[in-house]
Amino acid sequence: MTLAATAQIAQRAAAPTGLEGLTARVADDLREVNRLIVERMHSPVGLIPQVAGHIVAAGGKRLRPILTLASAQLCGYQGHRHLALAACVEFIHTATLLHDDVVDQSNLRRGLSTANAVWGNQPSILVGDFLFSRAFQLMVADGSLKVLKILSDASAVIAEGEVQQLLTTNDTATGEDDYFSVVGAKTAALFAAACRIGAVVAERPESEELALGAYGRNFGIAFQLVDDILDFSARQAELGKTVGDDFREGKITLPVILAYRRGDEAERGFWRRCLEDLEQDEADLARAQALMERHNALADSMARARRYGKDACEALEAFPDSPVKRELIDVVDFCVERAY
Amino acid sequence: MTLAATAQIAQRAAAPTGLEGLTARVADDLREVNRLIVERMHSPVGLIPQVAGHIVAAGGKRLRPILTLASAQLCGYQGHRHLALAACVEFIHTATLLHDDVVDQSNLRRGLSTANAVWGNQPSILVGDFLFSRAFQLMVADGSLKVLKILSDASAVIAEGEVQQLLTTNDTATGEDDYFSVVGAKTAALFAAACRIGAVVAERPESEELALGAYGRNFGIAFQLVDDILDFSARQAELGKTVGDDFREGKITLPVILAYRRGDEAERGFWRRCLEDLEQDEADLARAQALMERHNALADSMARARRYGKDACEALEAFPDSPVKRELIDVVDFCVERAY
Repeated sequence: MTLAATAQIAQRAAAPTGLEGLTARVADDLREVNRLIVERMHSPVGLIPQVAGHIVAAGGKRLRPILTLASAQLCGYQGHRHLALAACVEFIHTATLLHDDVVDQSNLRRGLSTANAVWGNQPSILVGDFLFSRAFQLMVADGSLKVLKILSDASAVIAEGEVQQLLTTNDTATGEDDYFSVVGAKTAALFAAACRIGAVVAERPESEELALGAYGRNFGIAFQLVDDILDFSARQAELGKTVGDDFREGKITLPVILAYRRGDEAERGFWRRCLEDLEQDEADLARAQALMERHNALADSMARARRYGKDACEALEAFPDSPVKRELIDVVDFCVERAY
Repeated sequence: MTLAATAQIAQRAAAPTGLEGLTARVADDLREVNRLIVERMHSPVGLIPQVAGHIVAAGGKRLRPILTLASAQLCGYQGHRHLALAACVEFIHTATLLHDDVVDQSNLRRGLSTANAVWGNQPSILVGDFLFSRAFQLMVADGSLKVLKILSDASAVIAEGEVQQLLTTNDTATGEDDYFSVVGAKTAALFAAACRIGAVVAERPESEELALGAYGRNFGIAFQLVDDILDFSARQAELGKTVGDDFREGKITLPVILAYRRGDEAERGFWRRCLEDLEQDEADLARAQALMERHNALADSMARARRYGKDACEALEAFPDSPVKRELIDVVDFCVERAY
C-alpha cells in the first residue's frame, strides 16, 4: 500500500462516522484485520496491491468486517479465525466496489478518485477478480465449508442483485418489491453473511446464527435505504458526499418510487424525462427534491428504514446484554438517524 | 438458454476441432456436464441465463471441462463428482472470457458477437461475477477443500496473469520471461487445475495428481503459444478466425518478441509504432508477417509449442496405456500441429 493510502486510512479513522463505539470495542482485532488485508492483497504483480490499496483505503469504514468481529465477540468467541474471515468479507466488498464503479462509470467515491478514474476500467475489473479469488483462498485456508457456503451464496446473490439493479435503472415502472429485492441482494446479503460468520466460528447454535443473520440483513436494508434517502437530502452535503448521484444516473430508489406513484401525470412525465431519458437540466434535482417533500417520499422512506433498523435490533434479543450488544444496537440507530 | 444458443452448440459440435476423439471418449459425461451448465446458470434474474447462455454457447469446445472428465477417466474414477466440478471449471473459464472481452473491448468471439457487444459492458462484468460465484457454490456443494484450494488458487493466478498481460500490452520491452509468466498464469493454470481435479476425485496418489497437473500446465502453454502464432498465420483464416487481432491491440506475444529482438533499428521502430503507438495502416499486418518470416519468429515459436506439447505428453508416462490416454496425447499433438 502507498503511503498516501495509509495516510488516508489514518485520516478517515479520525472522522466521525457513528461507528466509533463499535470500532473501539473491536479495536485490537480490527488492527489485525487491517494488517491481514494489506498482507493478503500483496501480489508479485505490483499493480494489484496498488489498485487494491487505493480502493481498500478509500472504500469505507470497514463496517462489514467490523460486524464479523463484533458478532464473534457477541458470541463469546475466543479464537482467531474471525480475523481472516473478516478480511475475506472486506475483500468481497472491495471487489464489488471496484466492479460497481466500472458499471456505474463513477469517478468519485467518498471524495476520492475511483480506481477506474485513475487506472481505467481494465485494472478495476481484473483486480476485483483477484480480490474475489483471494477471499476464497482465505476461506479455504480457514477450512470451514459452512463459511464457504455462506459467502459463496452471498456472492452469487450480490451479483444477481447487481444485475437486477441494472434492469431497474432508468425504468420508472420499477416497484417497491423490485427495489427491496435489489437491496436485499446487493447490500443486505453481505451484511447478513458477515454477521452469521461470527456465530459460525464460535460454534453457537443455529438459532443464534440465524438471529445474527437477521440482524445483518435488516441492518443492511436500513443502511441502503438511508443511503438512497441521503442522495436526495440536504444532510448529504454535510456528510461530505455529493447529492443527486442516483438521480443523475437514473437509479430508481424508494424515494423515487414513492414520489412517482403519488405524483400526477405531469409529475410522472418529469420523472420519466429525468430518469428514463436522462434529459436533465440544473433545476431538475431541486424539483425532484420538492416533489419528494410534497409527497412525503423521504419521510416515508425514513419510516421504512426505522422499521428495518428496529427489526435488526430486535433480532439481537436472543443475546444477553453486553457492551458489544449495546454497540451493535447503537450503530443501527446512528445509521438510521444520520439521515436527519 | 435461447434456442439460437442451443442450435449454436449443436452446430459447433459438428465442426472439426481435433477434439472429436477425446470428446467421444467422454461423451456421456459431457452431455451431463452440459445439462448441469444450463441448469446451474439459471437465476430468477432472467438476463443472467441469457448472457451466460450466449457466452457458454459461443465460448468454445468445452476443452477444459473435457480435460477434467478425461483425467478422471484416466484415473479410473467411477463416481459422479467430476461432472459438477467440470461444470465449475467451465464456469470459471466463461467468467474470465466475459471479463476479457470487456477488458479487450472485443466485439467478436469465434465469429459471434461478444456479450459486451450485444448487451454492453455492465451485464458482462456482473454475469461474470455471478458465474464465478456459482462455480464456488458448486465446489462447496461437492465439499472437497482440496478442490476448492486448487480452483481458488488457479483463479487468483489467472487474475494476476490478466493484470500482468495488461502491463505488457503495448510494451515492446516485454521479454520472453514476462510472456511465459503471463501465459502460465492466464491460460495454463486453469488447464492444470482442470486436469488435477480428475486425480483428486479419484483419490489417486499425489504423484498422479502432479503428473496430470504437469500435463495440463504444459498443454495450456502449448495451446496459448499456438493461439498466439495463429494470430499471425495464414492458417488462421481457414480456422474461421480473424488474423491480426493481437497485432491491432498491441499485444506482445512470443512471435512479436522474437521478431523484435532479432530486428534492426528500423524494424524495431516499425514494431514500436504499430504496437506501442497503435499507429497502423492496412499494409502493416502484412509487413509484420513478413518480418516474422524473415526472422523465423513463427517457426521458432512453433518449436517452443512443440516442446511444451512433448512435455505434456511425457507427463502422462506414469499412467498405463489406455484409449483415453492415447486421446489425451492426440489432442495435444493436434492442437500443436493445427498451426500448420
